[in-house]
Amino acid sequence: MKRSFIRQILESIDNETISFAGGLPDENLFPIEDLGKASQKVFKNKKHFQYTISNGITPLREKIANFYNDEGFKTEPSNILITTGSQQALFIIAKYFQNKEILIEKPSYLGAVNIFRMNNLSMTPITLDYDGINIEEFNTVYPSMKLAYLIPDFQNPKGSLYSETKRDEIIKTVLEHKGYIIEDAPYSELYFEQKAKSISSDIPNNSFHLGSFSKTLSPSLRIGWVRANEEIISALIQIKETIDLHSCGISQYILDEYLNDKTKYKKHLELLRYEYKNKMENFVTTLKAELPQFEFEKPKGGMFVYGKLQGVDTKALVYEALKKKVVYVPGAEFYLGDEVCDEIRFNYTHSTKDEVKVGLQRLRNIL
Amino acid sequence: MKRSFIRQILESIDNETISFAGGLPDENLFPIEDLGKASQKVFKNKKHFQYTISNGITPLREKIANFYNDEGFKTEPSNILITTGSQQALFIIAKYFQNKEILIEKPSYLGAVNIFRMNNLSMTPITLDYDGINIEEFNTVYPSMKLAYLIPDFQNPKGSLYSETKRDEIIKTVLEHKGYIIEDAPYSELYFEQKAKSISSDIPNNSFHLGSFSKTLSPSLRIGWVRANEEIISALIQIKETIDLHSCGISQYILDEYLNDKTKYKKHLELLRYEYKNKMENFVTTLKAELPQFEFEKPKGGMFVYGKLQGVDTKALVYEALKKKVVYVPGAEFYLGDEVCDEIRFNYTHSTKDEVKVGLQRLRNIL
Repeated sequence: MKRSFIRQILESIDNETISFAGGLPDENLFPIEDLGKASQKVFKNKKHFQYTISNGITPLREKIANFYNDEGFKTEPSNILITTGSQQALFIIAKYFQNKEILIEKPSYLGAVNIFRMNNLSMTPITLDYDGINIEEFNTVYPSMKLAYLIPDFQNPKGSLYSETKRDEIIKTVLEHKGYIIEDAPYSELYFEQKAKSISSDIPNNSFHLGSFSKTLSPSLRIGWVRANEEIISALIQIKETIDLHSCGISQYILDEYLNDKTKYKKHLELLRYEYKNKMENFVTTLKAELPQFEFEKPKGGMFVYGKLQGVDTKALVYEALKKKVVYVPGAEFYLGDEVCDEIRFNYTHSTKDEVKVGLQRLRNIL
Repeated sequence: MKRSFIRQILESIDNETISFAGGLPDENLFPIEDLGKASQKVFKNKKHFQYTISNGITPLREKIANFYNDEGFKTEPSNILITTGSQQALFIIAKYFQNKEILIEKPSYLGAVNIFRMNNLSMTPITLDYDGINIEEFNTVYPSMKLAYLIPDFQNPKGSLYSETKRDEIIKTVLEHKGYIIEDAPYSELYFEQKAKSISSDIPNNSFHLGSFSKTLSPSLRIGWVRANEEIISALIQIKETIDLHSCGISQYILDEYLNDKTKYKKHLELLRYEYKNKMENFVTTLKAELPQFEFEKPKGGMFVYGKLQGVDTKALVYEALKKKVVYVPGAEFYLGDEVCDEIRFNYTHSTKDEVKVGLQRLRNIL
């Protein structure tokens, strides 16, 4: 198994290195004061320190269900399983489908690839364009496996956003073949224009919709979830219970308390979108100035700019970059094979304006 | 897979029911004030809300390593992997050994049995007596599998404590056959007489020693760990990273902050032992008065009284008990097969003196 390059980097880089590698939110935007206030209430009740139920505390599942209901996607708390980040939701789903075949995007999220490998799922990668997966290829491959893992909104690593047409095509194919999609949606709230309608909302019984508070509130709390039909959720709860009994209760109570004020959360999301859009614009402008040869498409949301340095082996280059105290994730990390790849994923949410300039200049100097 | 009866019960019983079922600590003994103070410091630093490393934050791993060092069991932070309760540590180890054979105690912890099943480990149960596993049987079975799962201190469900002689025999056999033991030790600090020396400390490279804050501080924080040799820990980290990236960061920082005052934690453990010993004495006295036919051995620590009601099908009885608003875990839950079993596990740490009396009377009335 490929160890996550990103997490290896997280463990080894020094303070001098400017990192565009991790999918890290901006710490300055964590609502730590409001979360702190919420925690003070939580810590007054001894019951919050006890074991709780495996599917997650009921009031938080109600609130998550209502995120969906507010968008017209009918959801009950019994459709929700709370997990340790959406990463764990994906692990549990992969365990549920172990030894099966699965269609994935190419490139795809490395954390998902490792999960599928570990659960012995045989993966078939399908070309991903900036407007979503290649539909002809999708329609050819899907019928034989009836299971696909997609990140339709601001994909990791590519930043791509599926077009409405492609979403509709996928819905049609899934229903025709009575299969499933796993729709991973950690970045869906980080849109710069408008929120896309989830594919899952049109196929509520044939989908796993994964959400997370890691990109919107705080990754450290480790709370994500999966929305699926009730029968499947029951099966997933058994797996969840076996793995770790339940996710951190304190985190769940804190989030529940924080989310009692809906306006506060809404305003926080608006701020996040505003700030991340600015960060993206700055990154893209600097990128064009410092690395004009980098070919990419401007993202419409999320946390990443993805593109290529024609003809450059970006994995070989990253070790040079590390010596010059700058780091990114080479595209090769997001493909199954070991082929040479000239692509790069940059994260733009974590670094400051100065770091972006200096980091990209350091990179320019080794090209 | 058997769904955990205990967790099903947790989800379904009403407020009127007196439960001796769950392995629940006494909420009144959670040090919520001190944990609250620790959390206030933690919530002031935005860095605590960011992603962290998969093996767990370094200062907490240092403190856990020092628990071992203080007892003469040489341990580095690199020997520790922090997990979501020790339940998850066990899941990760089982994943590491998947498809192998494993020796287990009979009866054994149902959560472990489910983990082994899920990872396709073939289990051979060996008779467990109140002074530990049957050594003749152990020595016959172990050489062919070289892997055993044991709970030497105040076992769940049996409450048994391994004798020193039995510990020595196991150490000899493990070393002779160059195998491993998984030593699950969530109750080790809850001794009423003196702390037993872990088996692992004599075979540091051939053991997985599992610890947890769930029984000593709070289960809701979901922090446990495994101590093993460094090479194995590296392999386990990859599995951990794939499952959920890392365990709740906020919980780790709170525990780390709380544990900065060593005396406070030491005093808390002393209080816990004192209170649980009293609870045990009261439970045992009431048990003898209300159910004199119940055959058991008085526990020397931990959370459970285990014994038998000669000739009574305790699984059939539990449904009657539920109607009368009292519940326990029938012994059958801790065996692999579906045979009729006349044993019962009572938890004595969670209920009050009054509840113990009323609950056991309700039980007496249906016998």
